[in-house]
Amino acid sequence: MDDALYLTNLRDAKGAAVEILVREGRIAAKGKSVDAEGVSGIDGHGALVLPALVDSHLHLDKSLAGLPWYPHAAGPDRKSRIDTEKQMRDGLPLSVAARAGNLIERLVVHGTGHCRTHIDVDPELGLASLEGVLEARERYSHAITVQTVAFPQSGVLTCPGTLDVMEEALRAGADLLGGIDPAGIDGDVDGQLDAIFNLAEKHGVGIDIHLHDGGETGAAEVAAIVERTKVHGMQGRVAISHGFCLGDIAESAAAPLIEAMAGAGVANITHAPGGTSIPPVKQMHEAGVAVAAGNDGIRDSWCPYGDGDMLERAMLIGWRSNFRTDPDLELAHHFASRAGADLLGVANYGLDVGCRADFFTIPTETVAEAVVRHPPRSLVVHAGHIIARNGIYEGRA
Amino acid sequence: MDDALYLTNLRDAKGAAVEILVREGRIAAKGKSVDAEGVSGIDGHGALVLPALVDSHLHLDKSLAGLPWYPHAAGPDRKSRIDTEKQMRDGLPLSVAARAGNLIERLVVHGTGHCRTHIDVDPELGLASLEGVLEARERYSHAITVQTVAFPQSGVLTCPGTLDVMEEALRAGADLLGGIDPAGIDGDVDGQLDAIFNLAEKHGVGIDIHLHDGGETGAAEVAAIVERTKVHGMQGRVAISHGFCLGDIAESAAAPLIEAMAGAGVANITHAPGGTSIPPVKQMHEAGVAVAAGNDGIRDSWCPYGDGDMLERAMLIGWRSNFRTDPDLELAHHFASRAGADLLGVANYGLDVGCRADFFTIPTETVAEAVVRHPPRSLVVHAGHIIARNGIYEGRA
Repeated sequence: MDDALYLTNLRDAKGAAVEILVREGRIAAKGKSVDAEGVSGIDGHGALVLPALVDSHLHLDKSLAGLPWYPHAAGPDRKSRIDTEKQMRDGLPLSVAARAGNLIERLVVHGTGHCRTHIDVDPELGLASLEGVLEARERYSHAITVQTVAFPQSGVLTCPGTLDVMEEALRAGADLLGGIDPAGIDGDVDGQLDAIFNLAEKHGVGIDIHLHDGGETGAAEVAAIVERTKVHGMQGRVAISHGFCLGDIAESAAAPLIEAMAGAGVANITHAPGGTSIPPVKQMHEAGVAVAAGNDGIRDSWCPYGDGDMLERAMLIGWRSNFRTDPDLELAHHFASRAGADLLGVANYGLDVGCRADFFTIPTETVAEAVVRHPPRSLVVHAGHIIARNGIYEGRA
Repeated sequence: MDDALYLTNLRDAKGAAVEILVREGRIAAKGKSVDAEGVSGIDGHGALVLPALVDSHLHLDKSLAGLPWYPHAAGPDRKSRIDTEKQMRDGLPLSVAARAGNLIERLVVHGTGHCRTHIDVDPELGLASLEGVLEARERYSHAITVQTVAFPQSGVLTCPGTLDVMEEALRAGADLLGGIDPAGIDGDVDGQLDAIFNLAEKHGVGIDIHLHDGGETGAAEVAAIVERTKVHGMQGRVAISHGFCLGDIAESAAAPLIEAMAGAGVANITHAPGGTSIPPVKQMHEAGVAVAAGNDGIRDSWCPYGDGDMLERAMLIGWRSNFRTDPDLELAHHFASRAGADLLGVANYGLDVGCRADFFTIPTETVAEAVVRHPPRSLVVHAGHIIARNGIYEGRA
């Protein structure tokens, strides 16, 4: 009975009392009362049980987790942040694998079971960061699943040789191709999009493009990405991360773009920016766009914020979007859970019998309360094993 | 030695190792090593020690804290929120005093030691809510100090008889007079401002006005409040809560208004709104405006958000203001601590020897990290007594 876990005195998202029996990493039984003969129960003290959170946009390679506090040093522009990061990264006293692992522990204690991370690749770095993250992924495979994006932080065309390294990254195990501001960074929308869509089609992988470019410039890039997605037959496999422009432009201009994204199966991933426009995520969801959520940079040279909590992220999405009703707050939670699982292609996600036993418990009454208060998770289970309690990581390091 | 408290192994905001000895509610000694003969020490485990947080804008009377989860029911407009609240408040199964007390416990576990709350007064309610909050204030006087504002939620002129009840409220112990959108609610800027400024001058109390009105309308009201403040000689005793308009209008229009606020000693209190503009708080601080912060409504019929944490509120202020450097994050913390104490007139605030022993400890390395991560407070001390540990209230109820 080594592999069994029997949790009692829980409540599901609808408030019903439930017990859960886990065997061999799966939910073996769930109900008001389950047959768990021979397995000693763990009292959930009436906590809410929810499936693992999903973080669809991270930068595991950049985080300084585990290092002494790093006072933000970059200027307010993107170029200064890229340059500052390059200056400091070689001198760091912890490896990418160690820092990524430290951040993974923060994600895990907050109930995140699945994530997608962008990883810088360029001719200077080569595959070093990718290899570090893959090492951390292996070490924490009992605690989280990690999807990787080969990310051209410094541009594709403006940083010659990057495309070759991106292709090497795919051969080395990266799951998707990234992109970044084809206009703002490369100054050549067609050039960057042709390059990454052709490479993605060649290797049969998806694409996830950082798009910070605002206003009309960004909107034109969204239209171009939608067009390429259809031309390359990549419906359902392309995501735009950020897409601040969708919240910048007039609603009348955004609406047809959003329809086009929905039609072409182009997803949006938001981190609920604080200082710029957030895309109209509810309208996008209602129009059929797959919307997911991610923490983006956590404690790195770009941004000091965050502790890896996707419920706090859902709160920020709700706060920026003026969500107040339970259905709206549940939608913010959806972006940080099932919508992310769908985007990442997590198989057997959920709390039904037969699903992967990836879930957490939280001392709140409803999902809406979990979003707005996001107190420490009382228990986190991944692949059928308890890996964190009350904010403390208990898994293997 | 009953009243002594000796805390070891702490670090101050500058990172220096400190011990603190508390006697009779005051900081009796502080330093790398203090003489605490006969008092057994409590190990702080290297946590940061900071003076009590200050919440400068609350609605203790409105909170549903301690009741089952309440799904938000009001429509998206202010009138619907006012009406919804009136419909539900009579049928609540917990008194104002009980709900306010429950919320106070949430504030306290997050390290807040001082607060200012608005309390609805109108001819229908009379002083019932004020009396309930004053009862809670008395019951929790060992845990927090509470300043009260007689708040005309439904308007002053549009709700005849309110001004009389506001005056009764002052006689019954309210500390300040409130106001609300003289244009948007009363439709008579001069009428409402004359009424409350005359009453405030008569009783020698300060004023704290809710100003949600945006754009040019709000800006004209800011100018009118500044003007009245000077005419009535109330410099340093008037605050504008919210003041979203200061973030709405062009910088060139906001700058002279901000200068005028600074010149007249008119403060601003922000809760970092998510769905509308935040005032340019850093620019205002640099121009000499006293800026403080508050949680505003917590778990009430207006807004489901919040758990009483002023460090999370400081994070939201920083997030909305694009603060990233340590000095900027420390400024967000300042709004939620010393700036609030100055606004509320808290005597002997701080961690110097002789100060009131109102402080908390938090397992972070720096103030900036405390803002961005805001983990549970390990220890909360008020008036020299431990009242909460690791997010659990331990004071008397």
